[in-house]
Amino acid sequence: MAFGWIDDQAELRRRAGLVRTLRPRPADSPLLDLASNDYLGLAHHPEVTEGAAEAARTWGGGATGSRLVTGTTELHGELERELADFCGFEAALVFSSGYAANLAAVTALGPHGSLIVSDAGNHASLIDGCRLARGTTQVVAHAEPDAVRKALHTHDGPAVAVSDTVFSVDGDAAPLAGLAEACREYGAGLVVDDAHGLGVLGDGGRGAPYAAGLAGADDVVVTVTLSKSLGSQGGAVLGPARVIDHLVNAARTFIFDTGLAPAATGAALAALRLLRREPERAARARAVAGELHARLTAEGHQAVRPDAAVVSVRAPSPEEAVRWAADCRGAGLAVGCFRPPSVPDGISRLRLTARADLTDGQIERAVRVIGETRP
Amino acid sequence: MAFGWIDDQAELRRRAGLVRTLRPRPADSPLLDLASNDYLGLAHHPEVTEGAAEAARTWGGGATGSRLVTGTTELHGELERELADFCGFEAALVFSSGYAANLAAVTALGPHGSLIVSDAGNHASLIDGCRLARGTTQVVAHAEPDAVRKALHTHDGPAVAVSDTVFSVDGDAAPLAGLAEACREYGAGLVVDDAHGLGVLGDGGRGAPYAAGLAGADDVVVTVTLSKSLGSQGGAVLGPARVIDHLVNAARTFIFDTGLAPAATGAALAALRLLRREPERAARARAVAGELHARLTAEGHQAVRPDAAVVSVRAPSPEEAVRWAADCRGAGLAVGCFRPPSVPDGISRLRLTARADLTDGQIERAVRVIGETRP
Ligand SMILES: Cc1ncc(COP(=O)(O)O)c(C=O)c1O
Ligand SMILES: Cc1ncc(COP(=O)(O)O)c(C=O)c1O
Repeated sequence: MAFGWIDDQAELRRRAGLVRTLRPRPADSPLLDLASNDYLGLAHHPEVTEGAAEAARTWGGGATGSRLVTGTTELHGELERELADFCGFEAALVFSSGYAANLAAVTALGPHGSLIVSDAGNHASLIDGCRLARGTTQVVAHAEPDAVRKALHTHDGPAVAVSDTVFSVDGDAAPLAGLAEACREYGAGLVVDDAHGLGVLGDGGRGAPYAAGLAGADDVVVTVTLSKSLGSQGGAVLGPARVIDHLVNAARTFIFDTGLAPAATGAALAALRLLRREPERAARARAVAGELHARLTAEGHQAVRPDAAVVSVRAPSPEEAVRWAADCRGAGLAVGCFRPPSVPDGISRLRLTARADLTDGQIERAVRVIGETRP
Repeated sequence: MAFGWIDDQAELRRRAGLVRTLRPRPADSPLLDLASNDYLGLAHHPEVTEGAAEAARTWGGGATGSRLVTGTTELHGELERELADFCGFEAALVFSSGYAANLAAVTALGPHGSLIVSDAGNHASLIDGCRLARGTTQVVAHAEPDAVRKALHTHDGPAVAVSDTVFSVDGDAAPLAGLAEACREYGAGLVVDDAHGLGVLGDGGRGAPYAAGLAGADDVVVTVTLSKSLGSQGGAVLGPARVIDHLVNAARTFIFDTGLAPAATGAALAALRLLRREPERAARARAVAGELHARLTAEGHQAVRPDAAVVSVRAPSPEEAVRWAADCRGAGLAVGCFRPPSVPDGISRLRLTARADLTDGQIERAVRVIGETRP
């Protein structure tokens, strides 16, 4: 029977305790949220939701077509200019998601005959970009510029190194300056995904590349998502204007995808303007992460020192991680739970995200619940 | 220098006259739109834009995380139930775009060791799904069930055939009943992309699979986009509940992507409810397409008989297609222009889309402008 093999896979997942199910939340969830990527607490900010509402009213419910046909509005142009300006790059291009932006950047910058050097800890969307690209991918050891050097050394022709700036599982930062140096030695480009850096790292949240002095460099391309710090949906690629023009002409997830909805564009634009006006939000998100980490390690948890707003806490096993997260939830606290096959190293963990708008009382409560439910 | 090769490619494009540029539109564009995919004229309908606005206010600017973490709201659940019910399938799963839904369906249903039989005219997102999938892809002649049979005949193990229901370039329909029959002879699954069928074909716009008697079949999976007839953004996969459960557990563009923004979800839901209340919109879109085709061929244009709402008109060459579309625009009419490398057969065409809300006067004007600007 068609799709019969699906039942066998489902049975294997059931036996391994690895079944994933959707848990729809109500609009007024009573849970204390340490699981979302709403790092700056902007997703529900009235200026952001009004930005979405106003854009829908003015521009319609959807973009109505590919951005090369009817899908580009002046609103997209505004967001692109302001994003590029904020992060310090010449130009920007907005996509329907961060996932689509990553597929676009890697495929368009990793053509036939090129080498793509990819960090072993990269996000799924960068990995899928490598798989789709016509170039050859070499996966290298996590966060090691020398490994990138070694890979580039073997190749003749166009090359790029590709890395998250902040890795989504453990929240550790990539050695951006070292990576850029390695790439420059070989005339290679550097493509970095700042999904978890934008709004959190760099002066006023300008992102990890800005903090590393790479903003505006002619050999650096940055991808971002509008769905985390900016509380919306969508993605963007930032870089030299000629790279952006190239993406317009070559990136399939740009050419053959409907433009980002006006509401998402308007929400991201409102969030960006808010962040410019209230740059202290970025520092506060980092401070909350530091506070969470300090308190958790003081209580004997094994937590990775956060470089941005993600705090990862080790769990003894996948089963215990799931139970731990469920017990937190039972006690009113939402935390993320990463386990195989979503973690490359097989280590399960709770994943906590700091939000700029968490109060000291909420941080205290979160740490208490995590301690009380510890396996 | 890094990215130096991009300049060479740009120069080649310039010489070939194939440079693409973005043309942002204002909110009050004076152009008569025959280029968007807003088939039912719902993108600007007040119920749809208010659906977006209300959802943003209630649920926030973004979903804040993967749908497996914090990104699933009761609003997503509502849309999934109503979409599945409308199209006649057991279950549905909403994605951030139609592109992501197609990547998900093809990769999750084309595992290692499987055969994916893909129509030569399929959309870029299905093709990228084939490239990403672990199974082996065999591309077969356009719209030929016997070609699918022949491909399936050579394979042992899980197999799917993958096809658009309405092909985006020429607007011709796939022989769905024939494809299903071919698949059933070999116990293969059928995955069809109803991006251009939903809202236009089938009773009240229930889509091409519904029209072909395939709704609810346990060996048929349908992908749709929320960005065309439903005037919003996003995508969905419809099918048997066990297939949907499988996607939740296996599809990377579901697991590792932020959930669809509440505003887009709310807009699509409002559009769907409107369509249920006003089912005549679907028939009207088809009638407008038929009218456009009849008038254009009466004037000697080479237009493909439309099976849905896309009307394709041949142009003598890529250069003349571009000039023709530009002249239409100069005369106040927006039309699409497809040319290499976006067309598999190398034939350039104007691409017109029928909208249910076009008036007879607008149709007349469109046909007149197309005639007057003819190369
Ligand atoms: C590092 C990283 N890159 C890209 C993405 C994808 O972005 P989006 O959810 O906007 O598609 C995510 C998460 O969703 C991410 O964590
Ligand atoms: C046939 C087809 N499938 C899928 C898509 C992608 O859908 P979306 O734009 O919602 O990503 C499109 C167009 O955009 C399409 O024409």
